Amino acid sequence: MGSSPLLKARRNYKLVLPKLLEDIKSFTFSEGKATASLGDQDELKKLFPKLFGRPILKGKKGESRQNKPLKIGVVLSGGQASGGHNVIIGIFDAIKAMHAESHLIGFLNGPSGIVEGKYKELQQGELSSFRNTGGFDLIGSGRTKIETEEQLAKALAVIHSCELDGLVIIGGDDSNTNAAVLGEYLLQHQCKTSVVGVPKTIDGDLQNDYVEISFGFDTACKTYAEMIGNLSRDTLSAKKYTHFIKLMGRSASHIALECALQTHPNLTFISEEVAEKKQTLRALVKEVADLVEARAEVGKNYGIILLPEGLIEQVPEMHRLITELNTLLARPEFSSLGPKEALPKMLQTLQGEQKTTFASLPESIQRQLLLDRDPHGNVQVAHIETEKLLIEMVSSELKTRQFKGKFNPLQHSFGYEGRAGFPSNFDATYCYALGFTAAALVRDYYSGYMACVRGLIAPAQSWDVMGVPLVSLMHLEMRKGKKKPVIEKALVTTKGAAFQLFASRRSQWRIEDDYCFPGPMQFFGDPAVTDTVPLIIRSSGSPM
Amino acid sequence: MGSSPLLKARRNYKLVLPKLLEDIKSFTFSEGKATASLGDQDELKKLFPKLFGRPILKGKKGESRQNKPLKIGVVLSGGQASGGHNVIIGIFDAIKAMHAESHLIGFLNGPSGIVEGKYKELQQGELSSFRNTGGFDLIGSGRTKIETEEQLAKALAVIHSCELDGLVIIGGDDSNTNAAVLGEYLLQHQCKTSVVGVPKTIDGDLQNDYVEISFGFDTACKTYAEMIGNLSRDTLSAKKYTHFIKLMGRSASHIALECALQTHPNLTFISEEVAEKKQTLRALVKEVADLVEARAEVGKNYGIILLPEGLIEQVPEMHRLITELNTLLARPEFSSLGPKEALPKMLQTLQGEQKTTFASLPESIQRQLLLDRDPHGNVQVAHIETEKLLIEMVSSELKTRQFKGKFNPLQHSFGYEGRAGFPSNFDATYCYALGFTAAALVRDYYSGYMACVRGLIAPAQSWDVMGVPLVSLMHLEMRKGKKKPVIEKALVTTKGAAFQLFASRRSQWRIEDDYCFPGPMQFFGDPAVTDTVPLIIRSSGSPM
Repeated sequence: MGSSPLLKARRNYKLVLPKLLEDIKSFTFSEGKATASLGDQDELKKLFPKLFGRPILKGKKGESRQNKPLKIGVVLSGGQASGGHNVIIGIFDAIKAMHAESHLIGFLNGPSGIVEGKYKELQQGELSSFRNTGGFDLIGSGRTKIETEEQLAKALAVIHSCELDGLVIIGGDDSNTNAAVLGEYLLQHQCKTSVVGVPKTIDGDLQNDYVEISFGFDTACKTYAEMIGNLSRDTLSAKKYTHFIKLMGRSASHIALECALQTHPNLTFISEEVAEKKQTLRALVKEVADLVEARAEVGKNYGIILLPEGLIEQVPEMHRLITELNTLLARPEFSSLGPKEALPKMLQTLQGEQKTTFASLPESIQRQLLLDRDPHGNVQVAHIETEKLLIEMVSSELKTRQFKGKFNPLQHSFGYEGRAGFPSNFDATYCYALGFTAAALVRDYYSGYMACVRGLIAPAQSWDVMGVPLVSLMHLEMRKGKKKPVIEKALVTTKGAAFQLFASRRSQWRIEDDYCFPGPMQFFGDPAVTDTVPLIIRSSGSPM
Repeated sequence: MGSSPLLKARRNYKLVLPKLLEDIKSFTFSEGKATASLGDQDELKKLFPKLFGRPILKGKKGESRQNKPLKIGVVLSGGQASGGHNVIIGIFDAIKAMHAESHLIGFLNGPSGIVEGKYKELQQGELSSFRNTGGFDLIGSGRTKIETEEQLAKALAVIHSCELDGLVIIGGDDSNTNAAVLGEYLLQHQCKTSVVGVPKTIDGDLQNDYVEISFGFDTACKTYAEMIGNLSRDTLSAKKYTHFIKLMGRSASHIALECALQTHPNLTFISEEVAEKKQTLRALVKEVADLVEARAEVGKNYGIILLPEGLIEQVPEMHRLITELNTLLARPEFSSLGPKEALPKMLQTLQGEQKTTFASLPESIQRQLLLDRDPHGNVQVAHIETEKLLIEMVSSELKTRQFKGKFNPLQHSFGYEGRAGFPSNFDATYCYALGFTAAALVRDYYSGYMACVRGLIAPAQSWDVMGVPLVSLMHLEMRKGKKKPVIEKALVTTKGAAFQLFASRRSQWRIEDDYCFPGPMQFFGDPAVTDTVPLIIRSSGSPM
């Protein structure tokens, strides 16, 4: 790999540890009261007889003790999030500080590496070149789920043969659910290897009473906010383009909300609010067209509009249409049709509201809905160009209104750019502390826990450290027609402090140009610039 | 406008001046030998009787002298480029250092502000909040050209009534051509106001023997390179996507070349090379498909491909097709047709090679060519989604080859994101020096000159300062059927040092993953990280 001046400089960036973790040999956990699960206690007790009811753990200073050498395996699961390498380096530094003969192995290319026994020993030399870097390329990642009895048995065999004291699974809500499943399985099979989860995802949908934010969210939002700020400054100068910017984040709108708080766009849709208010596509189009008109009236033929990735599926009639399309497309008469025949046939076949909704869409979107399908044949919701859809429909709407201003829309979609950049100082430091916490959980024989570092709006030295029982975060949800134990996905709540702050400001951002330009993420210099934490966390603590 | 922590920090960033300019009262120019024009000397001598043949000016230290108060007008012309505000602030600081009673006025929203007499006085207080910021929002910009006798006369009247000692036009090749036209006009009408140009454009196509690079190029490339590096790290981790990334830059590929040198993608097309080799669209598609196959053979079902914005019009048969489409679309029988009828009608009407070329394109691109037209009815070449076109054609090509690997393409287009961000330290410092140089040219009664700061690979303290006669950069070119005096647009030359460096490295980048991750632009800290200059300049000087 090529190097860059920044890559070299970042290697030498000094990571600060929470005071509690500075001397890992004197760090310990105190056990709080027993937990239940988030819901469905009876069923979850049956599914997790060994892990159910474990206590909350609170990190504290204790007596310094001798530690034995530890052997830990680590795996990255799911999409990239900046800071993953620092979690691994944190685990490594922690277990080496516990005992010089500790070992860390990395399972390759995600959980399949566990099942297939593919791993490599991680050494100081290699790790130092990954310090404070983005990406998951040190050991790769993957989306395999260890679910079936066969997979679980294979994983057990590999874990057993590696003689692991612990397995650290770095992943999102699903991966942490699977960590609990595997942890339970190991305990039921007399395997003493602790399974510990670490909360990762740029989407920010792994939040709860204990996890203030998953790692990677901060870096992703800062990267997108840099671009949004640049586009805002550009459009404020050129005064002729309306930028429609779609942001990654799956069904949750945390990223859009955070970016809105950082950049003050003229309009931001929050999917959860759209769903709550049961807003139709028509209503969204009207809202944009009203904005364009109102701004044009004061001579502003430009603007910035943010759209969360999950927007379109939260619009009630689109949700129903997509469900119907998935059913119809699975029928043999459709699966055999070519692109040219499918469209008229679908228009004939659909009935009632779905017919009306489908017919109202621009042809390019109709085609996309029918042709762009996932391996199961379903409509690829994430691929729907919401930004294009809105642009086309707003253009038509403005024509019907005899709009006299100018509407020059430009579309952007930001996603992959934000998953693997150099982690922000916040993510770099947070992840390093998470790695230490995960190592301590393994050392102290705790399985089925999520490593948790809290109090993040304070300086890193004073962060709190916890262990949270994974099962305490779970309830049952329907997945593919079956009730499954899952960690609840955290969506934006319109009653939350972050949304409330946004709601109190957005009318001011509509016509006035109150754009804010965060600029490129800075790593060195004034901490007021370099060490900021996500505003959605700050807004629940201190005022902005 | 909202503020951001970085905005505040950047205001206090200390700009370094070249030693020559530190004491502007003792700075002076020595006149070198008389110049001719780049070509067509006889015609240009007739067009510019007053400005033709002026000498090259070289900045030097002289005796300190008393300066009288100056009144300068400044205007921003064309698309945004980071650093424009610093040029204006440089002019301001320079004329205030010359005499405390100097004045600077800013013409609003581009050259139309001169014609219409719309301007505002610029004051220290307002300017300090724009120090080291991106965008042109301080006074706006525009694309009006002052060309007609009526416009010129109006401009003269405004300039006269404002009693300007000088007018500084910050713009690209066309704007600097127009600066010469206006400067000549003023002299012919006994107006003593000096007209001075400043080389601006992110495209980097305003380069010559004197101008090493236009301002804004560095910031734009660093912004795009950050994103390309992030995508490279992401795809190296996920190992499943081939990213097609289109980069702004109009017909020149300097940006693509610079970004390639900074990030080491697997494949980069350079439009000028494609034109030189007369590569067909078919050949480009084959080149990408060969790459995808070769990488898949070693298990790499992912990659990074850079495409310059001007690529498609440099493909010979596409160039001919677009020319033919422009002719046909101007006919009444086409202008009256709706979107549905135009496509079959065009397929019927086209003949020979153009028919074959058009028919070979994906339907979405055919539609785009017919429907997306500029105000003159021409095909909008910049809007053609080259990245989509290549993706569709490569997908089809791989099917015919019974490709066994995986090809999951993703498309990106980076442009407006890079025009208005916070200027890099290089652009901020360079622009400030350009502002001082422009002010000195006005003070010393030089008109029809371009401000020029050179030796840019050295530290700013030792930069050289020059004045270059605008007419010496000009020759005649056909524009809209007429021979017009223009400053030649600088394209990438395949014999140049930068391209040669790229050509010597690219085969190594093809299959090996030698990706380089520049990360977000840094402003504070180690100068090796913060103060880098464009590699296309460095490659012509010292080795990388």
